[in-house]
Amino acid sequence: MIVVAGPASNGIGFRLSRILGSKYTRVLTKVFPDGETYIRIEDEVKEEDVIVVQSLYPPQDRHYLQLLLIMDTVKDLGAKSLTAVVPYIAYARQDKRFLPGEAISIKTILRGIEHAGAERLITIDIHNDKSLEEWLNIDYANLSAVSLLAEYFRGKMEKPLVLAPDKGALNRAKKAASILGCEYDFLEKHRDRVTGEVTVKPKEMMVTNKDVLIIDDIISTGGTVVLATRELLKLNANRVYVACTHPLFAGSSYEKVLSSGVEDIVATDTIPSPASRVSVAPLIAEYLEKKL
Amino acid sequence: MIVVAGPASNGIGFRLSRILGSKYTRVLTKVFPDGETYIRIEDEVKEEDVIVVQSLYPPQDRHYLQLLLIMDTVKDLGAKSLTAVVPYIAYARQDKRFLPGEAISIKTILRGIEHAGAERLITIDIHNDKSLEEWLNIDYANLSAVSLLAEYFRGKMEKPLVLAPDKGALNRAKKAASILGCEYDFLEKHRDRVTGEVTVKPKEMMVTNKDVLIIDDIISTGGTVVLATRELLKLNANRVYVACTHPLFAGSSYEKVLSSGVEDIVATDTIPSPASRVSVAPLIAEYLEKKL
Repeated sequence: MIVVAGPASNGIGFRLSRILGSKYTRVLTKVFPDGETYIRIEDEVKEEDVIVVQSLYPPQDRHYLQLLLIMDTVKDLGAKSLTAVVPYIAYARQDKRFLPGEAISIKTILRGIEHAGAERLITIDIHNDKSLEEWLNIDYANLSAVSLLAEYFRGKMEKPLVLAPDKGALNRAKKAASILGCEYDFLEKHRDRVTGEVTVKPKEMMVTNKDVLIIDDIISTGGTVVLATRELLKLNANRVYVACTHPLFAGSSYEKVLSSGVEDIVATDTIPSPASRVSVAPLIAEYLEKKL
Repeated sequence: MIVVAGPASNGIGFRLSRILGSKYTRVLTKVFPDGETYIRIEDEVKEEDVIVVQSLYPPQDRHYLQLLLIMDTVKDLGAKSLTAVVPYIAYARQDKRFLPGEAISIKTILRGIEHAGAERLITIDIHNDKSLEEWLNIDYANLSAVSLLAEYFRGKMEKPLVLAPDKGALNRAKKAASILGCEYDFLEKHRDRVTGEVTVKPKEMMVTNKDVLIIDDIISTGGTVVLATRELLKLNANRVYVACTHPLFAGSSYEKVLSSGVEDIVATDTIPSPASRVSVAPLIAEYLEKKL
């Protein structure tokens, strides 16, 4: 087995190979003056079970084409099998035709990965895991980083309470709460029809003097988290922590969330960020050890 | 028939629809705060012969994914047929494995276009047209813009002479020369083994008092053209003109070529640039009128 780490592997490929005790190779990458990426795999992959690791954080489109180029090359070079590990899959939120004529972008992304020769796709906390079922004909796994994130906070919080940012994410909060041995709830978002103002608040549970952990799959602009933190502190929560799998943090939103009064923000390394302190490598290794 | 112009269509789609007398629609495009592209085709394409126009100039990877998203959507919406017009195809120069383990990038690009549902691919002066034959199972055409470029110079040059930048491009020079009714030659590139200095000069023909047209498929960094222009002026050429199909002009190379002493630089609109004064739309229209 050999782990082939793409330029957006973000250290996950290296950690993965260490845990698996497998061979490891970086992909030699450079960018030509006109902006085209050059890709070269320097080590032998012939007859190997190849694990390509490449995340699709921004610049998403460049990282996506690099993934396709790497997979195509691995197949050309005679790999025995090809597993694509894509910790963060871009375009996952455009998962249906909300308006007529819209692209179902995640379909194009997933079909492209399959066409490029992947026999298995492993990802972490994809926005909607039905997309995998709907668009892939290959083996796939959507692994959850919730336990890893919750473990990080074990022993660090006093009187903990876990909150999901919306009702749809309640299962994630439930799982984290079971690890932290506490209660959980979700935040209710309300948009004022007249002023357009958005407010969020915990549904019914008292947060007074609690250490609250907001756990989400992705933080993009951080708007919801900022509103929630301010509201929770107003309701006399003791401290507010934020955890997410994919710290996208568009623009300067990391600073925005930090300055909203949170105690700490912790995320995984599916996307590089100042909050990326938990690696998903052990999660992927555990799955691969069962499968391969 | 309907022409669907992608965000990198560069006006070619609009001109094409005008010449063909067909329907035309722009693709509604926006970029989300995290960098993902949103694509929506607002007009009906069901049961239509659809011509998608999208060039792959920089940012190549973004334009490529947009092309895939558009094609996928056009197929979803029930188009009768799908022709992809990709005036400039990126990654065409990485057309073989020069070193072990290298990506054959053009293969990935072309296979992706086919997989996304194109039934025909039309391009202009691709770097190596064998790539099309080698990697596509669909109908394709590689149209030459040489005649359009040569026509542009008809009557503008005195005692014309056409030069190809290297021997491999001699046929292109021959074609332009036949339109301008003059002789042609190619430039010999020489790299000094000791100093590493590169020199280029016309093989044998006299350039004294001639108006010389250097014609190339693509200008990327402009290095060869700059050297050739200086050399030709040293050899007492009267004026030096430069024509190319794809004016890539990486970095500030347009200014670099301009200040080398050329009289004028003219290119097609496959890539937007200050030199893009000749549209390839009539060329594509002529082909489509024969085919559809």
